[in-house]
Amino acid sequence: MKPLLGITMGDAAGIGPELILKAFSTDRLFSICRPLLIGSLAVMELYRDRYRSPMAFRPVRDPSDCAGAPGTMDVLDLGLVDPARLRIGEVGPEPGRAAVVYTQEAGRLAMKGAIDAIVSAPLNKEAMRRAGYAYEGQTEILGELSGSKRFGMILLLGPLRVMMLTTHLALRKACDAVTREKVLDMIELAHETLRTFGIREPRIGVAALNPHAGEGGLFGSEEVNESRPAVEEAVRRGIRAVGPVPADVVFVKAREGTYDLVLAMYHDQANMAAKLLGFGEVTTVLAGLPIIRTSVGHGTAFDIAGRNVADERNFILAVEAAAELAVRKREGP
Amino acid sequence: MKPLLGITMGDAAGIGPELILKAFSTDRLFSICRPLLIGSLAVMELYRDRYRSPMAFRPVRDPSDCAGAPGTMDVLDLGLVDPARLRIGEVGPEPGRAAVVYTQEAGRLAMKGAIDAIVSAPLNKEAMRRAGYAYEGQTEILGELSGSKRFGMILLLGPLRVMMLTTHLALRKACDAVTREKVLDMIELAHETLRTFGIREPRIGVAALNPHAGEGGLFGSEEVNESRPAVEEAVRRGIRAVGPVPADVVFVKAREGTYDLVLAMYHDQANMAAKLLGFGEVTTVLAGLPIIRTSVGHGTAFDIAGRNVADERNFILAVEAAAELAVRKREGP
Repeated sequence: MKPLLGITMGDAAGIGPELILKAFSTDRLFSICRPLLIGSLAVMELYRDRYRSPMAFRPVRDPSDCAGAPGTMDVLDLGLVDPARLRIGEVGPEPGRAAVVYTQEAGRLAMKGAIDAIVSAPLNKEAMRRAGYAYEGQTEILGELSGSKRFGMILLLGPLRVMMLTTHLALRKACDAVTREKVLDMIELAHETLRTFGIREPRIGVAALNPHAGEGGLFGSEEVNESRPAVEEAVRRGIRAVGPVPADVVFVKAREGTYDLVLAMYHDQANMAAKLLGFGEVTTVLAGLPIIRTSVGHGTAFDIAGRNVADERNFILAVEAAAELAVRKREGP
Repeated sequence: MKPLLGITMGDAAGIGPELILKAFSTDRLFSICRPLLIGSLAVMELYRDRYRSPMAFRPVRDPSDCAGAPGTMDVLDLGLVDPARLRIGEVGPEPGRAAVVYTQEAGRLAMKGAIDAIVSAPLNKEAMRRAGYAYEGQTEILGELSGSKRFGMILLLGPLRVMMLTTHLALRKACDAVTREKVLDMIELAHETLRTFGIREPRIGVAALNPHAGEGGLFGSEEVNESRPAVEEAVRRGIRAVGPVPADVVFVKAREGTYDLVLAMYHDQANMAAKLLGFGEVTTVLAGLPIIRTSVGHGTAFDIAGRNVADERNFILAVEAAAELAVRKREGP
């Protein structure tokens, strides 16, 4: 049975609906999954007509009714956005609130096993804020819903996965965050998540903070005092962690297939690798939640919304990743 | 007239002599330059016989006698190493001292215009130390010789050049080093050096220290207080400097040809780009000296010296870069 993927529509005023129409315009993705759109049927029809898409829609009341027939998108219609009032390309509270509800509903369905995974079209932080929500993004919505205390995001770069110890922090503060406890915590989170992806003994490469991994303490003490003890403790706990490995080496080795995941110490370390490794665009998957959820690496792109010029390739990668992870999870480690 | 390149032999016990024999074993490099080996004729003969190289040697007393005939290496024989006592693959004071003298002689010849550029085979810091020298490397030897106060190293990555604000420093200290004065100083050094390479109006991309270039001060203050004012002052002085540009963007743009040089803020920023951009191996060229000098990106590799397994491709790139820079310098900006 092909995995059943809940496709959240995201912000109705952004490029999400367009990406969904384009990605499922051929039979290819239908051959690897049964998609269930969770959003507004009326909004999807609006975009379909605007772009003259041949997509058919089939409303379903329950995910178990999902047929997944090529060319026909099953839709769990939650409404919440009035197409007549929708201002494409503009931040608004109505689409902002709707996007949150779509994500929450998808999370609930995934938590009870009614769908195998979630693929998220982009939503907009400012639109959510105007609707009265303080979420940073879908990660926090789903984290709250599932009651998870420790969660994070994994960047998917072709065969390589990258997690970040810290993200949007000044580099000085990112240095402060390299502690034994936090590094160990993230190694364990990565390990557990990769196990749910069906990787029995995940190999985790831990990037160093300092040049030459600190050269034995000559160029910084974080390797000696923090990340090396964390790796050693992880190994004692049965995890195949390695490092700290110099940052200019760890991603070269990862490209060669040495690790299943690299734990980066700071934002630019991960994102330089993502942009320069040449695996194409980044998609993301959540770590630490009991559900599978992938997403695109970009935002709502209001500046180009409604013009039928959005590039759906990143979204296709996110759908493929979710389908693959759902199959692997079913097969177990 | 093909440029006359002084090829310093480096440490006699390392892979330098082998690289030179291999790189000049075909006619290709002779077609772009006239090489003059500055080192020990007896040591070169030892390696030639050991590896059954077909290379011929022709001693010259003055660089002006250099013929540059394919298959025959002109040699300015300074001796200083007794082949009978040479222990290949081992650190020793005799080869260490000799390597310093070869570099000094090459520097003197370049300073007075007797040779157009220097290409350095690797020398060894520990061997120099045992010979009583405290130099970090050839950069310091040539810097001292030329009386230059402000000099540095440029990494050559195919069409891209990278300079580093700091190199072997803990990341915390590298953050401290991002000052307005230092960033401006390095922009000017890069500008002046690229001008001597024949680039009339060099475009210099300055990398940010913090993620998203600090996002207007949200993720760190160095961009607002230090690097942006430095770039603005450079622009006022007529330099085509841009930035600070986020690190995960600046190298992508550089790969597309947007900049002639990227000024990196710290070691791993430059070296991750070097390793991941896929331009092949790194060679280096000195900045801030009145002479052109390129070098390989690796060391003496004592562990494989004498076994005829060293890879000469990096050295060939260094010769090609020196020849090209010498021609450009002659033509002027």
